[in-house]
Amino acid sequence: MKKRFLIIIMAFCFSPLLFGQEIDPELTEAWEPVPEKVTPGIFPGSPPSDAVILFDGKGLSQWRKTLVGYGGSMAEVEKVAKIRAAMTEYEEQDAEWEVKDGAMIVVPGTGAIETRRAFGDIQLHIEWLSPVDPGKTGQGYSNSGIFLMGTYEIQVLNSYENPTYSNGQAGAMYKQSIPLVNACRPPGEWQYYDIIFTAPRFAGDGSLIKPATITAFHNGILIQNHFELKGPCIYRGEPHYVPHPEKLPLLLQDHGDRVRFRNIWVREL
Amino acid sequence: MKKRFLIIIMAFCFSPLLFGQEIDPELTEAWEPVPEKVTPGIFPGSPPSDAVILFDGKGLSQWRKTLVGYGGSMAEVEKVAKIRAAMTEYEEQDAEWEVKDGAMIVVPGTGAIETRRAFGDIQLHIEWLSPVDPGKTGQGYSNSGIFLMGTYEIQVLNSYENPTYSNGQAGAMYKQSIPLVNACRPPGEWQYYDIIFTAPRFAGDGSLIKPATITAFHNGILIQNHFELKGPCIYRGEPHYVPHPEKLPLLLQDHGDRVRFRNIWVREL
Amino acid sequence: MKKRFLIIIMAFCFSPLLFGQEIDPELTEAWEPVPEKVTPGIFPGSPPSDAVILFDGKGLSQWRKTLVGYGGSMAEVEKVAKIRAAMTEYEEQDAEWEVKDGAMIVVPGTGAIETRRAFGDIQLHIEWLSPVDPGKTGQGYSNSGIFLMGTYEIQVLNSYENPTYSNGQAGAMYKQSIPLVNACRPPGEWQYYDIIFTAPRFAGDGSLIKPATITAFHNGILIQNHFELKGPCIYRGEPHYVPHPEKLPLLLQDHGDRVRFRNIWVREL
Amino acid sequence: MKKRFLIIIMAFCFSPLLFGQEIDPELTEAWEPVPEKVTPGIFPGSPPSDAVILFDGKGLSQWRKTLVGYGGSMAEVEKVAKIRAAMTEYEEQDAEWEVKDGAMIVVPGTGAIETRRAFGDIQLHIEWLSPVDPGKTGQGYSNSGIFLMGTYEIQVLNSYENPTYSNGQAGAMYKQSIPLVNACRPPGEWQYYDIIFTAPRFAGDGSLIKPATITAFHNGILIQNHFELKGPCIYRGEPHYVPHPEKLPLLLQDHGDRVRFRNIWVREL
Repeated sequence: MKKRFLIIIMAFCFSPLLFGQEIDPELTEAWEPVPEKVTPGIFPGSPPSDAVILFDGKGLSQWRKTLVGYGGSMAEVEKVAKIRAAMTEYEEQDAEWEVKDGAMIVVPGTGAIETRRAFGDIQLHIEWLSPVDPGKTGQGYSNSGIFLMGTYEIQVLNSYENPTYSNGQAGAMYKQSIPLVNACRPPGEWQYYDIIFTAPRFAGDGSLIKPATITAFHNGILIQNHFELKGPCIYRGEPHYVPHPEKLPLLLQDHGDRVRFRNIWVREL
Repeated sequence: MKKRFLIIIMAFCFSPLLFGQEIDPELTEAWEPVPEKVTPGIFPGSPPSDAVILFDGKGLSQWRKTLVGYGGSMAEVEKVAKIRAAMTEYEEQDAEWEVKDGAMIVVPGTGAIETRRAFGDIQLHIEWLSPVDPGKTGQGYSNSGIFLMGTYEIQVLNSYENPTYSNGQAGAMYKQSIPLVNACRPPGEWQYYDIIFTAPRFAGDGSLIKPATITAFHNGILIQNHFELKGPCIYRGEPHYVPHPEKLPLLLQDHGDRVRFRNIWVREL
Repeated sequence: MKKRFLIIIMAFCFSPLLFGQEIDPELTEAWEPVPEKVTPGIFPGSPPSDAVILFDGKGLSQWRKTLVGYGGSMAEVEKVAKIRAAMTEYEEQDAEWEVKDGAMIVVPGTGAIETRRAFGDIQLHIEWLSPVDPGKTGQGYSNSGIFLMGTYEIQVLNSYENPTYSNGQAGAMYKQSIPLVNACRPPGEWQYYDIIFTAPRFAGDGSLIKPATITAFHNGILIQNHFELKGPCIYRGEPHYVPHPEKLPLLLQDHGDRVRFRNIWVREL
Repeated sequence: MKKRFLIIIMAFCFSPLLFGQEIDPELTEAWEPVPEKVTPGIFPGSPPSDAVILFDGKGLSQWRKTLVGYGGSMAEVEKVAKIRAAMTEYEEQDAEWEVKDGAMIVVPGTGAIETRRAFGDIQLHIEWLSPVDPGKTGQGYSNSGIFLMGTYEIQVLNSYENPTYSNGQAGAMYKQSIPLVNACRPPGEWQYYDIIFTAPRFAGDGSLIKPATITAFHNGILIQNHFELKGPCIYRGEPHYVPHPEKLPLLLQDHGDRVRFRNIWVREL
């Protein structure tokens, strides 16, 4: 009985050409466009040939002190948007963070830094390290943040055996999306994020056409799975979208802790 | 003039606490759920603590010869679905591919293999290598495929300086989605895919609630960005969804070439 | 003038077959022995096919509590040698160190641990991490040690911006050989040693035939270049050789600090 | 009985401070010199802070066509030495090898290339790849060589399932030292050597004071363990030392096969 059944199955299985031959397979071949060739880096995590290198351990030439910052509430976000719209020219100020042993280090009090260049949809690789400080807890332990377009924050924090609110731990889209798992290494060890970010699209009248989305990996482990952002990541209140340019700088937060970053690169999508 | 403008900006920038203090930031803290802890692997690409190891170089215990295969046309896909529905028990047959030097190798003629275990939404890491054969071209050069749920194929092919139709090259969702870029290494070198796959959802009556999606990286470079599949990846004709179980085995194709695979693991999402 | 000179040189350069043809090149071919095949690991630092895995993150089955320890002075070393010679059987006691997040951690007060298996000449890969503790200094900051044959110590210590005597810093052959450079990463980060150790050879009467030698890399950087050890690495006094068996366990020191180790393997040479 | 024995042992074991207290441990502390700090690369195999980068994938600026080459017999070696001694100035000719996909490739017929800079004792990292060519065998399959000081050759060859004389296979010190094991990956895959080379020392009268030595790892596996070279690595006849300068260029051989190299760096010891 079982054997006969098997034989029937096998017949199906090994005769894939018996069915549907009336349809020419060439009809569904697409020969254009031909994808552009990109040479991968030698090591997993090292930049591919088309990457924009934002930090290779040697200096902060790709970064400047942010002049407009980010907003902690919707009121602030709106003011930031207005300032941006009003700004036509300004003197760029160099980033004042420290560079040491191939890493850049937040110098508390010098303020957030942002890329001189603006980006929209990107693939981002960034490595970070929480300095060890047993006296610190919760949001006070190695807090920083990666603000995509200076607006949408993936949290940087020591979340290894350091409880805090779940939508504020490492890998959270701050106050919007809890990471799928906690993939944090202990403070003192290097960690990395690999991020796919799609910028929001706004209509001419400023209304939202499509929200921003993020997919993120923490140390190679999926923590955000195509999450649709509700608007800017803010500290107080509920977010909603405020229209902004198609490209904006990537910003790294100074939250008072000497968090380190290294090996930062993006690919524009 | 410029200076005064700067001062205004700086005022905004360094006074984040001036705005919106009426809203208590604790209102938007979510303390539950607490994400499960997962320990990352030592090396980028090595399995995290919660991974199901499908191949670690030592044997094919996680794999079997497929008994139902995949369909090359919608007619075949539907028959496969019927067989699956009819099957209540059968003897599993061991995979007959070769294991050598820490890799598993397609043995042409032995047929596709599939995991003994079934999966739905997954993160997948898989490494593959096209053997060098200068005489081969197009679809004939190192062809294999990774069929998510035995149905949705990401193409495996030598696409380094080997033109073929774009929706059939390495990293294509076969005949549905051209990869964003060509990140192929030359034949003979190891390559890797990191994949986030979300299974389609079907209603009780078999109608589609939500299509399957895929995000894929080839050698660390984004090649599929949350692509919504149109249905099974088929050789002939246009695809449409056919309902199937929530979990199905992962299948690797025998397309007649001695393609190698290694370091295969999944995380269930 | 210059041109003519060049031509002469080029004539030498491109006529390698003009000279010495009287000697048959086959005379200097050696076809035996044929070296054994070893398959390398996938990642740099992951174990090759012929490695003895001493710790893969999952447990301490390869280790035991040491019963004889090591000596801090020549008097002690000699007593240890006598005890070893007298021991014919004893109950092995399990190592009491902690295993967490894929690492093993010194539990201060539980004592040194050693491999159940004994080794002579080896290639050793071992990764270690100094926990951060800003209050500590000098030899008090993350002190441990890797005792080859339970006798010849390569120092484990935080030597990143933590001065101590040079022949006692990380990578020193303790009190015998200063490392060539200081390749230490900051405390909190994983580091690795790759070591080639050749055991000393003793004559039947216990006299030294050949001293032990060590070549060591710290984070991939050469720090000991075929150093000839003067005898056991001791805390007090000048060392000299004391004869011992051809193979002895590898020992890891409990020096009171919660140093972590992981990914430990050896190849017997 | 056994228990009492154990207690005695434990007494030895846990009382390291009972012995030899008469000797002050500070007497054997060496505080000078303080080893220079070197920052390791991010990835295993990536260059440390003090490395001379010889090839980073982007061009051949560090290389030139060799003007004197190497010798295939002692007669040739001696002529090469005479030419070197006679050369006071010459026009450097650019290396004519190909650069593609981050690798440099031997262009058969263009001749060996050598570094513009000269080196003595070094740590060398170099990656290489044998192109696949099933028609080739023995010494004819992906032959090249790395000539330390343009004189002492570690063999580059496909030695994966490709028999040849053992002292001429990959990792051999050509015709002098068989590699300890065969750690070769298949052709088409990248491989790497990590090498510690100590130059020979000659007296003022040209007599040998100390032979050259080499320790080498192939894909992380020890293959040469402080081997003392007998002289130049030659094709015909028995080698003996011919005096040469303290530093000489590193040379890569054109043996007619399109072998690839990448990620080449040295540290001067």
